[in-house]
Amino acid sequence: MSDLRPISFARGAPSLDIVDVEGLKEAAHAAFTNDPAGLTGYGTAIGYPPLRAWIAERHGVAPENVIVTNGSMQADAFLFDVLVSEGDTVIVELPTYDRTLLSLRGRGAQVRMVELEPDGIDVEALARLLDAGVRPTLAHIIPNFQNPAGYTLSQPKRERLLELARSHGFVVFEDDPYVELRFSGERLPTMLSLDPENVVYASSFSKTVAPGIRVGYLVGPRPIIAQIEKLATGTYISPNMVAQGIVNQFARSGAIERSVQTVKTALAQRATALAAALERELPDARFVKPQGGYFMWVKLPEGTDVAALFTAAAARNVQFVKGTDFVLEGHESTLRLAYAGVTVAEIEEGIARLADAYREVTASRG
Amino acid sequence: MSDLRPISFARGAPSLDIVDVEGLKEAAHAAFTNDPAGLTGYGTAIGYPPLRAWIAERHGVAPENVIVTNGSMQADAFLFDVLVSEGDTVIVELPTYDRTLLSLRGRGAQVRMVELEPDGIDVEALARLLDAGVRPTLAHIIPNFQNPAGYTLSQPKRERLLELARSHGFVVFEDDPYVELRFSGERLPTMLSLDPENVVYASSFSKTVAPGIRVGYLVGPRPIIAQIEKLATGTYISPNMVAQGIVNQFARSGAIERSVQTVKTALAQRATALAAALERELPDARFVKPQGGYFMWVKLPEGTDVAALFTAAAARNVQFVKGTDFVLEGHESTLRLAYAGVTVAEIEEGIARLADAYREVTASRG
Repeated sequence: MSDLRPISFARGAPSLDIVDVEGLKEAAHAAFTNDPAGLTGYGTAIGYPPLRAWIAERHGVAPENVIVTNGSMQADAFLFDVLVSEGDTVIVELPTYDRTLLSLRGRGAQVRMVELEPDGIDVEALARLLDAGVRPTLAHIIPNFQNPAGYTLSQPKRERLLELARSHGFVVFEDDPYVELRFSGERLPTMLSLDPENVVYASSFSKTVAPGIRVGYLVGPRPIIAQIEKLATGTYISPNMVAQGIVNQFARSGAIERSVQTVKTALAQRATALAAALERELPDARFVKPQGGYFMWVKLPEGTDVAALFTAAAARNVQFVKGTDFVLEGHESTLRLAYAGVTVAEIEEGIARLADAYREVTASRG
Repeated sequence: MSDLRPISFARGAPSLDIVDVEGLKEAAHAAFTNDPAGLTGYGTAIGYPPLRAWIAERHGVAPENVIVTNGSMQADAFLFDVLVSEGDTVIVELPTYDRTLLSLRGRGAQVRMVELEPDGIDVEALARLLDAGVRPTLAHIIPNFQNPAGYTLSQPKRERLLELARSHGFVVFEDDPYVELRFSGERLPTMLSLDPENVVYASSFSKTVAPGIRVGYLVGPRPIIAQIEKLATGTYISPNMVAQGIVNQFARSGAIERSVQTVKTALAQRATALAAALERELPDARFVKPQGGYFMWVKLPEGTDVAALFTAAAARNVQFVKGTDFVLEGHESTLRLAYAGVTVAEIEEGIARLADAYREVTASRG
């Protein structure tokens, strides 16, 4: 192994310099002072009530439509427990978040992947599947700055997707952890706001507060939320009241707006630096520069062995995730670069090393 | 309904006056200061490593034998997911914790209840079941100050139970959240320490720090812990790092020892007051005064309709949990009184009202 400093484009997590640790300290102190009983008591499975109310207000729904969980992946797991039975068909994007794929396949779901385009899932390909008789219970969609692709679902496609959901009777699972991290372009309405009856919406404070706080939530129709509440009670009695109390304080004090601003500014710089470095160092790379979020999807020329590139990059202490992790088959010439956890200097150095690895891999092929 | 002040003997949770809120504030500040990256980052499914190490040291095991979770009920759920399949036989105490019963039955386990005596589960009755061909995968035991009975498993019975586990090839699930709350008598060795190969041990910081902190853990053989780690990764990536960082600080600073002392002192007073009030106000009640923990099990004369007593008590704004909640059938004349959340004055007032309700119920019967 190289003794170069490790540079990781692998993990979708912010670097510590863009986490408001002082703000968290203050929020913890204030939260314990303002509501000691609420933070230290068991609470109930719906989550810390003031935070639930804050989330409900942000989404223009009643608190009864919201459940706050230990991170949004736990929320996904509950939702799948309620809506997805063995053998059910679930639509996902191609590529999509690897943990969602694993979780669905672990439940015995029939996963049908539908091509993701730079403006979101190919809704006409989905329509053809539906016309051909595919009957999904759920479509899992990451509408903004998708993981792994960084792509965003356009407004017309949002509307078309909801139309398909209504006419074919499936639920749209709008998985939206990155929505607050838009650094260019116009914010689009959530599908939840367009059609609250057919959408279950998930998000989290991992990207706006900190991942270690592990607070996520679901918004959806009351019968679904009520079923999940029952499941959550049986699983853990109640989620973390201390963490949710801290998030509530952080949100209501306005610290969250400052935190989001800090994160967005850094992400914009990092995305720009990454795009520039790729254009300069690795002109074979094809990508769409994201308008927000953590990730950039990179396509290398057909036939490039990204598994070999992974090894060659690792020898230079550079990490990324292979595209094959986000699909069921194929995509051997793609990779995901996460730029949230690396500084601009690290990006420049890291992409130079990646390009060096790429030259080695393509030279040995040629 | 009465306009008397509500008094609840129902919930197994401490009153706020015995929770060290100032200590938690200080621990939160120190934890964020000492390890901002550890608290705010994702971490991994095994939990916050310094806390895992602290727990391992307390139990004299390696960190690899420990996983720290979002509360111990989540730990139980993971353990059952790994060890209990549909149709498996699981031994539980009669009576036992209602949520454990629900969780096991929800998994389709064959629950076999074995009588709990004041010195713990009737191990000879269990031996007879085993001799008769019952083949459990697991025996769930709450060894100290059992919920709901308040009873403690004696040392000879601990040894006999382990002998049965070894000879019949089942795992003892030692569910021990109350162990630190002994206020009289001698501490007994954990079954984990007597036979680490055949025991999975669970405990939590709900009773020594605060319930809302939602931090529990399992100690067990490495293959089981490794399987649970995988399951936990797939469920929530990682448990709450902020909460675990706060607990770690609270534990290592010594605040936890002071907190336990405060809680034990209060519980001893409350248990004494409860026993005295019952003897004075409700001489028909039979109970064993606990040596620690939160709960006292009360038997009323055979034929007493505790469901009616529940209603009559509720009309006087007094809550308790009926014994029938902790069993599969029978026990209609028993109830659980939790004394952790009530002051001595509330206990005296509450038992006076309960006795009044009892007189009403028995008078209408007679």
